[in-house]
Amino acid sequence: MSASPVPATCKVILAQGIAKKLLGEVSTNLQKLSFKPKLVGLLANEDPAAQQYADWSMATCIENGFDFELRKFTKEDIEDEILKANNDDSIHGIIVYYPIFPAPSLQDGYIQQIVALNKDVEGLAHTYRFNMYQNIRFLDAPHNTQKSILPCTPLAVVKVLEHLQIYNSVLPYGNRLYGKTITVFNRSEVVGRPLAALLANDGATVYSCDLDGVKLFTRGKGIKKVHHEVHDMEGMKNDDCLPKSDVVISGVPGERFKKNFDGPAVKEKASIYVPSIGKVTIAVLLRNLLRLVDNQGKGSSKPEETSS
Amino acid sequence: MSASPVPATCKVILAQGIAKKLLGEVSTNLQKLSFKPKLVGLLANEDPAAQQYADWSMATCIENGFDFELRKFTKEDIEDEILKANNDDSIHGIIVYYPIFPAPSLQDGYIQQIVALNKDVEGLAHTYRFNMYQNIRFLDAPHNTQKSILPCTPLAVVKVLEHLQIYNSVLPYGNRLYGKTITVFNRSEVVGRPLAALLANDGATVYSCDLDGVKLFTRGKGIKKVHHEVHDMEGMKNDDCLPKSDVVISGVPGERFKKNFDGPAVKEKASIYVPSIGKVTIAVLLRNLLRLVDNQGKGSSKPEETSS
Repeated sequence: MSASPVPATCKVILAQGIAKKLLGEVSTNLQKLSFKPKLVGLLANEDPAAQQYADWSMATCIENGFDFELRKFTKEDIEDEILKANNDDSIHGIIVYYPIFPAPSLQDGYIQQIVALNKDVEGLAHTYRFNMYQNIRFLDAPHNTQKSILPCTPLAVVKVLEHLQIYNSVLPYGNRLYGKTITVFNRSEVVGRPLAALLANDGATVYSCDLDGVKLFTRGKGIKKVHHEVHDMEGMKNDDCLPKSDVVISGVPGERFKKNFDGPAVKEKASIYVPSIGKVTIAVLLRNLLRLVDNQGKGSSKPEETSS
Repeated sequence: MSASPVPATCKVILAQGIAKKLLGEVSTNLQKLSFKPKLVGLLANEDPAAQQYADWSMATCIENGFDFELRKFTKEDIEDEILKANNDDSIHGIIVYYPIFPAPSLQDGYIQQIVALNKDVEGLAHTYRFNMYQNIRFLDAPHNTQKSILPCTPLAVVKVLEHLQIYNSVLPYGNRLYGKTITVFNRSEVVGRPLAALLANDGATVYSCDLDGVKLFTRGKGIKKVHHEVHDMEGMKNDDCLPKSDVVISGVPGERFKKNFDGPAVKEKASIYVPSIGKVTIAVLLRNLLRLVDNQGKGSSKPEETSS
């Protein structure tokens, strides 16, 4: 391997710092409330990763001044337990740890829709997802006092890109990724597809890469286009997207794919590298919880003009 | 193989006859309307099976006095096309042909929820599925004028069981399968799980069998139980369910599993055998379409007391 003509100057930015800034904003808004918002975690599987995520969300809640209660039960009771939490006024947000009924079962998709809209801290309700894809930012148009909730992981990526100034705040709100080309590896319903849509709705040109090929997400032509367009890029290979891109995001789970980003090749080519976003995701979860409290009419904060 | 001590007397009952009876009821209700209800089929895949199902639903619609229009387009346009049909007052029902984005993608699950509740002829909307699992029969309690739509295939099985008098109309409505034990092979969200729940809600003891084991669906103890209970039958094998059962239903797609039912063994043991239910499913689709017309306030028929 020949030496790079220019010394590598890749700056590694850790999630922790970005999360801290977000948690600072959360703390400021929390202090305006006269009570501790309560998040309930519902755990109905034996997956150690889910238990770990539950422990982690509990610790972050407690540290940041929120109430948290973890409830464990069998898979068969999940529907009734969610309904119970929906109807309990002392609970402000609900998080369900998936998977409960693993693929190929589609039962988890059914369960996700049981959580009450105004307690769905993860933004998995169909209404929220539809609003995200359709680029509808509020639940109560034309009053626009209740913000639609965005799913935590895609929103965490947006927050990272804002921090890195990929979002350009000189541009008008809603078009702050104009001129940026972004490649997103993974097109799942959980991360990759919502993320590609969010970024395109904010003005980016997005190559969405997955095993079944490349799709191009764009804002669409003309300023009247309210939501993104998707085009099948037949014949284009995932690798073709990289040289065209300002930003490359991997939403692919699994260590083998992650090795593509951990090696020296990335650090020689990239100017900034963010190894993981888990801590930002949990900060965003608490931010969503405060949004829900607002939407429940129990909050005091006003909606701000931000990209999410 | 030793000869059976009693001569086989298995009666084969074909779906066609059952469908004909249902279509007769549909025709009677259709004549009360002053217009032809219109079903629109949305086809966005190249699957020959979907095209065949589309052709078949079109033929059944036309034969039975309904309007039908097939609209074809690319996968990328499906969301916008559904929204267009939702907003078109001349369309009374919408059927989308799946799969569009095949597994492991969960995008079809998102698409299903785009169809307007009052045009969802297949009963795939979360509200309908939730009502089915929770045994809620109407959309507008306590007025109870708008019937909740049941998914076509599980409802077709119910109609077959009514025809075969497995449902006992001497028993009170809502408990007409009391005392019956039914095994259902397959626990998918499309057929097996909703069917097991429907049958248990109607009073049956249901063994739900799939690759990950047996679950028992029952009405639950006490007359106050509003919806079924599910119990994990750890250690029980799928084969153990057969000798306990009055009825065995296969919802398993694929020819290899079907051979279990087509051979002489079934006809030597069973008293009644129904080889397929496809024609009943389409009759039920038209029945659902009339329900939707009623719910849209454009109908003339009154809700009847039946098991669905």
